[in-house]
Amino acid sequence: MQRKVAVAGASGYAGGEVLRLLLAHPQLEVGAVTAAGNAGQPLTSIHPHLTPLADRVLQETTPEVLAGHDAVVLALPHGHSGALAAALPQESVVIDCGADFRLRDPQAWSAFYDTPYAGSWPYGMPELPSADGPTRAALAGATRVAVPGCYPTAVSLALAPGLAAGVLDPGDLVVVAASGTSGAGRSPKAHLLGSEVMGSMSPYGVGGVHRHLPEIEQNLSACGAGPVTVSFTPTLAPMPRGILATCTALAAEGVSAAEVRRAWEAAYADEPFVHLLPQGSWPSTGAVLGSNAVHVQVTLDERAGRVVAVAAVDNLTKGTAGAAVQCLNLALGLPETSGLPAVGVAP
Amino acid sequence: MQRKVAVAGASGYAGGEVLRLLLAHPQLEVGAVTAAGNAGQPLTSIHPHLTPLADRVLQETTPEVLAGHDAVVLALPHGHSGALAAALPQESVVIDCGADFRLRDPQAWSAFYDTPYAGSWPYGMPELPSADGPTRAALAGATRVAVPGCYPTAVSLALAPGLAAGVLDPGDLVVVAASGTSGAGRSPKAHLLGSEVMGSMSPYGVGGVHRHLPEIEQNLSACGAGPVTVSFTPTLAPMPRGILATCTALAAEGVSAAEVRRAWEAAYADEPFVHLLPQGSWPSTGAVLGSNAVHVQVTLDERAGRVVAVAAVDNLTKGTAGAAVQCLNLALGLPETSGLPAVGVAP
Amino acid sequence: MQRKVAVAGASGYAGGEVLRLLLAHPQLEVGAVTAAGNAGQPLTSIHPHLTPLADRVLQETTPEVLAGHDAVVLALPHGHSGALAAALPQESVVIDCGADFRLRDPQAWSAFYDTPYAGSWPYGMPELPSADGPTRAALAGATRVAVPGCYPTAVSLALAPGLAAGVLDPGDLVVVAASGTSGAGRSPKAHLLGSEVMGSMSPYGVGGVHRHLPEIEQNLSACGAGPVTVSFTPTLAPMPRGILATCTALAAEGVSAAEVRRAWEAAYADEPFVHLLPQGSWPSTGAVLGSNAVHVQVTLDERAGRVVAVAAVDNLTKGTAGAAVQCLNLALGLPETSGLPAVGVAP
Amino acid sequence: MQRKVAVAGASGYAGGEVLRLLLAHPQLEVGAVTAAGNAGQPLTSIHPHLTPLADRVLQETTPEVLAGHDAVVLALPHGHSGALAAALPQESVVIDCGADFRLRDPQAWSAFYDTPYAGSWPYGMPELPSADGPTRAALAGATRVAVPGCYPTAVSLALAPGLAAGVLDPGDLVVVAASGTSGAGRSPKAHLLGSEVMGSMSPYGVGGVHRHLPEIEQNLSACGAGPVTVSFTPTLAPMPRGILATCTALAAEGVSAAEVRRAWEAAYADEPFVHLLPQGSWPSTGAVLGSNAVHVQVTLDERAGRVVAVAAVDNLTKGTAGAAVQCLNLALGLPETSGLPAVGVAP
Repeated sequence: MQRKVAVAGASGYAGGEVLRLLLAHPQLEVGAVTAAGNAGQPLTSIHPHLTPLADRVLQETTPEVLAGHDAVVLALPHGHSGALAAALPQESVVIDCGADFRLRDPQAWSAFYDTPYAGSWPYGMPELPSADGPTRAALAGATRVAVPGCYPTAVSLALAPGLAAGVLDPGDLVVVAASGTSGAGRSPKAHLLGSEVMGSMSPYGVGGVHRHLPEIEQNLSACGAGPVTVSFTPTLAPMPRGILATCTALAAEGVSAAEVRRAWEAAYADEPFVHLLPQGSWPSTGAVLGSNAVHVQVTLDERAGRVVAVAAVDNLTKGTAGAAVQCLNLALGLPETSGLPAVGVAP
Repeated sequence: MQRKVAVAGASGYAGGEVLRLLLAHPQLEVGAVTAAGNAGQPLTSIHPHLTPLADRVLQETTPEVLAGHDAVVLALPHGHSGALAAALPQESVVIDCGADFRLRDPQAWSAFYDTPYAGSWPYGMPELPSADGPTRAALAGATRVAVPGCYPTAVSLALAPGLAAGVLDPGDLVVVAASGTSGAGRSPKAHLLGSEVMGSMSPYGVGGVHRHLPEIEQNLSACGAGPVTVSFTPTLAPMPRGILATCTALAAEGVSAAEVRRAWEAAYADEPFVHLLPQGSWPSTGAVLGSNAVHVQVTLDERAGRVVAVAAVDNLTKGTAGAAVQCLNLALGLPETSGLPAVGVAP
Repeated sequence: MQRKVAVAGASGYAGGEVLRLLLAHPQLEVGAVTAAGNAGQPLTSIHPHLTPLADRVLQETTPEVLAGHDAVVLALPHGHSGALAAALPQESVVIDCGADFRLRDPQAWSAFYDTPYAGSWPYGMPELPSADGPTRAALAGATRVAVPGCYPTAVSLALAPGLAAGVLDPGDLVVVAASGTSGAGRSPKAHLLGSEVMGSMSPYGVGGVHRHLPEIEQNLSACGAGPVTVSFTPTLAPMPRGILATCTALAAEGVSAAEVRRAWEAAYADEPFVHLLPQGSWPSTGAVLGSNAVHVQVTLDERAGRVVAVAAVDNLTKGTAGAAVQCLNLALGLPETSGLPAVGVAP
Repeated sequence: MQRKVAVAGASGYAGGEVLRLLLAHPQLEVGAVTAAGNAGQPLTSIHPHLTPLADRVLQETTPEVLAGHDAVVLALPHGHSGALAAALPQESVVIDCGADFRLRDPQAWSAFYDTPYAGSWPYGMPELPSADGPTRAALAGATRVAVPGCYPTAVSLALAPGLAAGVLDPGDLVVVAASGTSGAGRSPKAHLLGSEVMGSMSPYGVGGVHRHLPEIEQNLSACGAGPVTVSFTPTLAPMPRGILATCTALAAEGVSAAEVRRAWEAAYADEPFVHLLPQGSWPSTGAVLGSNAVHVQVTLDERAGRVVAVAAVDNLTKGTAGAAVQCLNLALGLPETSGLPAVGVAP
């Protein structure tokens, strides 16, 4: 039996990616597709790749249009999910791709966002190593799930195994991450024009101001090594998709390279989507393009006394829409990997 | 029941793409993976995206290794498929991604290739409009299939409807096509380095010398409008994948824009992978990335008296490996679309 | 003695490129820099590369601000140059980068533009082979010059030698050209976002509707082979700059490959910026990046009976701002090549 | 009077860039151009952008060919400069773009390189803040100069002002830098193919093994804050040129944001090529493309207690060939900025 899934905010990149994945999913089918400013337009005028939905016109995002579905995926600007979710039937699964329900600490929310705190939902990163036991369990049968941010996905999965296993000193974490431009969304701005971004790298949100920072710190603080503060510098890279997170931490006193590697091996041995690469092989965003895969590598730099852990994800797939579908699968009792591309489109 | 498929030439881009598609195919599983110079290497040292095959080592390409499979896909340099295919069991389906068995005219072969003519196999482009009736029929249950070249796929599907319907004058066809760099293969050459190709467009094989030319002409000559000669200029574009073929022909005397459109509509109305876009919307290679989709658009330029037809394909998917799997499906009696991505990874 | 040059429309890409070239020019210095919507903003907030002008704030584009300069370069949207130029002193050199004064035929203007016909000025393509004798002569000491469009520059310089020498049949010209995204300007639009254009090629303005078409036809019709109509398909390529124009024409009856080559050799033997490449070598946009160079190659395709001529230019340099400075040099009596980069930034 | 400059290793990207700059230099002219494996080939068959040198054929790299020039620029693989330089006249200025003479500590050399230690020459980074006084002075009239590496240029100019001024704690420096692919040279390798690098980011040389590390540490240790060890992770970015170095250090106890900014302002106030950007504006590699400019920005992240300093350079221009010409100017007594592009080719 096919379950019917509505997508709210279908005109953005995240919404479009959810639709791409739903179209290939054997147990899910696309229900209503809605938008705000773009309501009334043919879906393929915005997402020309979605030809199987060529007969669809974007509807208004209202509770009425979204009612009567097994699940609803919200891909809205932050600040909009709370009211809408409250108006949806309690028994409909609601998966929020936005930031609204990710943070458990209202003060962390207020320090980084300009809208009222909406609360927190189960956090949709099943693989996250944590001191509280696995996150996966909380997602089976959940009716509300907050999908993680793209940077937090890459950074948390890169560093958490070492913090959980005690091989990293939590005191001085430094992360520099490169993101493809689709992370900045589909809203046209001069600095995101192809002419500006091709052939160019630049940082942004430098100095502790990026909104994904409290989420990263929440995830890494839950690993049991104590609360962490992260130096986080995102950079914009000349590619449409992909995040490469280069994460470093001081190695815990006396830890060996083998102990470091064992921590990551143990964390991801049974994960279907997170792959610790063979030693000497480093992640590339190209290898995970369009897939739900996470590629991770780690090494101990003995000269500098630092562990370097690197993760690559596709910001729109595992970083957003793939995680949403993975959570949908868990919430609806389907196999966790159902309908999800395991392998990137490379080269 | 899963059918087992071997891939010979698995270290190249075409072979890697066949493996990517097989991994997601519900009725096929990956058998032997073989190579020439790269035999003995771990598959993921060459194709790091193929993590589900992380335990595989490339074997030598020999008939013994390739025996015992329901099907074998050959992704070899031209000149190598004939001898190998002859040594494979007659009942194994053999799908050749190379050029060896595409041309029906030995002289056309000799004019463009430097190896002996190997013969011709059923031509694996099910959607090709033709004067001889549909190509699709010849592929059901075939045991040998020649997969079309990437440029011929885009150019033939762009122009054939108009030639078959008689709305184009076959006398003066002009094609300029842009290809992503993966079309040139994985063998390292200075002019294919990222440093050289990023930010740059250039033509190559200009003036009637590209090897895909006789195949293009074979396909278009079979449309019933008479033998054609094509002016074909391929260009190298700064993107890893994709072909955009811009094809023009003189409009037949007195033909109207509506008649032109109807010819293409009729040809592709029932095709699962070939989409004539809504009027005013033009194909982009980004919209078909990683998919088996072909996007086509056509218009009549009344000032110049020419019809312009444009097609976009992913050169590695529909242009090679996707067509191979589509033919495998037909040859093995599976649904034609089984396991094939219908929608591109965009943006 | 330095001459002072004002730039109106300095916030766009063309205006920015004019400033880049002026900063390196030994005989010219930057005077007023003006804009419309961006007036009041620091210039480097829009063009961060122009650090030597870090103290400049964009002024309003008014005749008063632009008065008192030896020359004024206009880089405005079409329809705005006429009134402004009329208000500038007759003795100031005015170089218009826009389309307003390029067309000599008011009807050609009206068929493609929505503003009133403004007239025509000497056409700023010194190298254009023509039946009327050299264009260069009309530019020496001119006080008003219309800078050619980017596509017309590439297409005209590719084809004109053959038309002027009578080795091409003017009856059926077909041009497909690829442009970098900066040709579409700095105004933010969704289809020009980096996310959309990277990795993707697509055509636009197909079927005889692009505004550069009457200018191309004007140039090629002036070659003496008779009036021409061109099938012109522009495509958007995933690169910030560059135009690659692939131009084909039927070879004149009985013409030989050597005669074809001689026509181009003769046309450009003494040109400082236009280079016919050695036989077998084809232009790439990368090789002319940021320079005033034009790379051209030509061949006779005897199978198809067509000559293929290809030109590469940087759309912002030789295609706009470089041509503007070249015309400035001629108008002011400076050496034609003064201050102009002759060599592209490659790789 | 023009000085004559020979270029050894002219077939690589560094050599090609030196030639591009020499062609635009008002006081220098190109003498012999030599190569190893490519000797005998026309220069423009390798560097098609260098059309003014279209008549040149690459000569063998021998002392005889290189004799009789005012200066010789060496752009050779490491290990080759020592013997060649020893065979050149003592009075010829020799500028080495390679690593051979950069390190003052033979043990640092041996730990990272596999050839014998060649010695050290004056280090060609005139702007480097240092405890020993300015580096510039040692370069005026020098006859031997070691041109800095590309990463060391970006990293040293980003961090040195803070170390020299005592506002940074030297104990825990973390650098993540992105480089364009031309930094890896022109020698063809599969992982550098356009197909592999476009759309992809990946790290390499992770964990304290990159050869630029001892040079970075040498420069930063000379700032007077004590010897430093750096955690350095280089990444390969999908662009042909450019380095973006994101450098972080613990802020010195009690230092304020204003004190941090003042340190950088003081260091670069009078530098012609190094620009501290206005507050809030961050460097991009696109803004320095093809130029000798260095764009720098710095901020204090009070949450994390770290200063983040970012520098952007063009790896081939200021990162190699531009620095070489800058040093040539100083060595020959010409104005330091002569012939050097001050402004990047943007967008």
